[in-house]
Amino acid sequence: MAKIAVLGYGTVGSGVAYVLDTNGAQVADSAGEDIELKYILDLRDFPGDKHESIVVHDIDVILNDPEVEVICETMGGIEPAFTFEKKALEAGKSVCTSNKELVAAHGPELVELAKKNNVSYLFEASVGGGIPVLRSMNDSIRHERLDSIRGILNGTTNYILTKMDKEKADFDSVLKVAQEKGYAERNPEADIEGHDACRKTAILASIMSGQFVKHEDIYTEGITKISSEDFEYARSLGRAIKLLGSCERKNGKFFAMVAPFMVGADNPLSTVNGVFNAIDVHGNMLGDVMYYGKGAGKEATASAVVADVIDIVKHRGKHIDWNLRNVPAQVESNENAERQFFVRVDASAKDAALAQFPGAQEVTASGVSGEFAFVTEVISEKAFEEKLTLLGNVKGYIRLL
Amino acid sequence: MAKIAVLGYGTVGSGVAYVLDTNGAQVADSAGEDIELKYILDLRDFPGDKHESIVVHDIDVILNDPEVEVICETMGGIEPAFTFEKKALEAGKSVCTSNKELVAAHGPELVELAKKNNVSYLFEASVGGGIPVLRSMNDSIRHERLDSIRGILNGTTNYILTKMDKEKADFDSVLKVAQEKGYAERNPEADIEGHDACRKTAILASIMSGQFVKHEDIYTEGITKISSEDFEYARSLGRAIKLLGSCERKNGKFFAMVAPFMVGADNPLSTVNGVFNAIDVHGNMLGDVMYYGKGAGKEATASAVVADVIDIVKHRGKHIDWNLRNVPAQVESNENAERQFFVRVDASAKDAALAQFPGAQEVTASGVSGEFAFVTEVISEKAFEEKLTLLGNVKGYIRLL
Repeated sequence: MAKIAVLGYGTVGSGVAYVLDTNGAQVADSAGEDIELKYILDLRDFPGDKHESIVVHDIDVILNDPEVEVICETMGGIEPAFTFEKKALEAGKSVCTSNKELVAAHGPELVELAKKNNVSYLFEASVGGGIPVLRSMNDSIRHERLDSIRGILNGTTNYILTKMDKEKADFDSVLKVAQEKGYAERNPEADIEGHDACRKTAILASIMSGQFVKHEDIYTEGITKISSEDFEYARSLGRAIKLLGSCERKNGKFFAMVAPFMVGADNPLSTVNGVFNAIDVHGNMLGDVMYYGKGAGKEATASAVVADVIDIVKHRGKHIDWNLRNVPAQVESNENAERQFFVRVDASAKDAALAQFPGAQEVTASGVSGEFAFVTEVISEKAFEEKLTLLGNVKGYIRLL
Repeated sequence: MAKIAVLGYGTVGSGVAYVLDTNGAQVADSAGEDIELKYILDLRDFPGDKHESIVVHDIDVILNDPEVEVICETMGGIEPAFTFEKKALEAGKSVCTSNKELVAAHGPELVELAKKNNVSYLFEASVGGGIPVLRSMNDSIRHERLDSIRGILNGTTNYILTKMDKEKADFDSVLKVAQEKGYAERNPEADIEGHDACRKTAILASIMSGQFVKHEDIYTEGITKISSEDFEYARSLGRAIKLLGSCERKNGKFFAMVAPFMVGADNPLSTVNGVFNAIDVHGNMLGDVMYYGKGAGKEATASAVVADVIDIVKHRGKHIDWNLRNVPAQVESNENAERQFFVRVDASAKDAALAQFPGAQEVTASGVSGEFAFVTEVISEKAFEEKLTLLGNVKGYIRLL
């Protein structure tokens, strides 16, 4: 019998209780013993809730109880979650969490602290919700040399982009419907500006590089500039538009960024639609491996937290090791990344565009006129920006993958 | 330092040596220690090969060497692989294998033997080649109640079906090209009749049910009856035709089968093309999770074998447990499975078809005439077969998913 505590009885925290209640036999089979939820920490009381009797308001009750082996931090945010996690690890308790913000900000430090205390720090649910990608990266493909990781890491933006594509609708109207349906927050900035995807990209980049990639070092663009005309062009090119978190190792340099990409039809990410997430990992032996599933949602995310609990219980007395040192990673400036771009300029700028981009391939789309659209040759981000500034009259651009 | 042996220096066996040679540092990081290939067992010599000095012809050299902890059986076939694996496990050595034929035939018995000897029996590479699906099923989602597993498990047939679809070509001509290019065997029966997919489905079904599902108990159809007209209808229905291995738990009954299915566009399996494989698992908390990657190939398959070696070395002295008992599973007869069918009959049989299938929905396809095609309502396989027999003039049918 292993006893655990949940910090924060919100969506994910109550989901953890629900998964343990519903799949208790399967959880016990997987862990090799029963797992009991002994405490729930929350500021609130939950009268009438099935678990109201185990709700406590003081973290020390949990930290001082030697029976509690694993703490699931599902509060979110930096504080007090960070302080609670540190105290738990220092008290010799393993921690697992869905808190992407905290893992992105302090993950490597918390892994280090866990190692020092011979306990574990796991965070499967922080990337891709229920998708079992992080454990697989650590257990099944860690012996690969990874060339790239590219992921659709935010369900809200993927839902919006999919709707814009299928219904030929513009961004604002789709966002409004998504908000009404509860798929997007009232304040959607964290999703649509790419900040959420950036946190998850930082976590993936850190695991891929083995060092701490700070989210502040990741160039990030959201999807607010994507128009319905862009989708017409994407269809014409046989491509899909996806917000990707991208980590890449090229010529010994490490790149990371978040931005909308026009993804080729032969890339499996191009067909990931709606609220689903997917992460494509390219290894030097394996080639492409993609993990696909629900990137959010109460039960799916909670199931990933429970998987971490099980892993910890199975490895009691042992630190589950990550290839992740708490030293800053060298992230190359995005300026030096090289790729193709899809560009739209005013029709009047066609000659200037062809002068700046001699290898440009024109693209046309049904129902779009008064402009000149093209795909550039492979060019550095820096050179591209310089040419674009000289050009003027630019209606927009999207990177190609 | 852990020492291992490879049995069989063919495609996968030499791939294991290649992965260890190429990614030695990453393998050591992942395992926590160096892994050395001490012996290769093969009937042949390999003069000039990098590893010729460690080739042995006598299995006892390996079995009697207490330094050898892990044996990778990459010979394929039932014998002598089965005998060698049993002897290895009895000698206290863990075994990992890519041998799907043997795992399908004797996997539960070998897991049992491994447990008895406190060593491990792993077989990641036996399903989906390099796709890290089995360990994930055992480590990350074993606490889910799985409703279904559906997989594209054979790259050759998926390549053929993809070519037939994209190039509007018929089966025979695509098979011929596939054989010329080496994507299909000269004797392609094991692939195109579904036998290979059946072995892998048996392994997945056993893990899902926790009991031994024999491949003989799995109803299996290949792809030889699929025509270019079928693809016209599938396009008209917005569906893809895929050879699926399917395991399903419904109303307490367990079903398993291999057959071509018309897969809806909203199912992620519908977009898995070419030689790629994918396995979609549906859990009661997680919903759909899909694993995608190379289902075959020297390096990818060998990488999965090496992942097993690493897992074993990390868990030295401990049996890695599967939820898989060596007792026969109760597999429900396919007759009782219920689903929709797409059916084509001669035009003259239209009235008879509508009489037999009153809820039939007609389907038309460009360039196909002289026949009546329709989709049935949900019906049992048994009732469907009976009606079909009464009908006569049937040109073909494909199940819907």
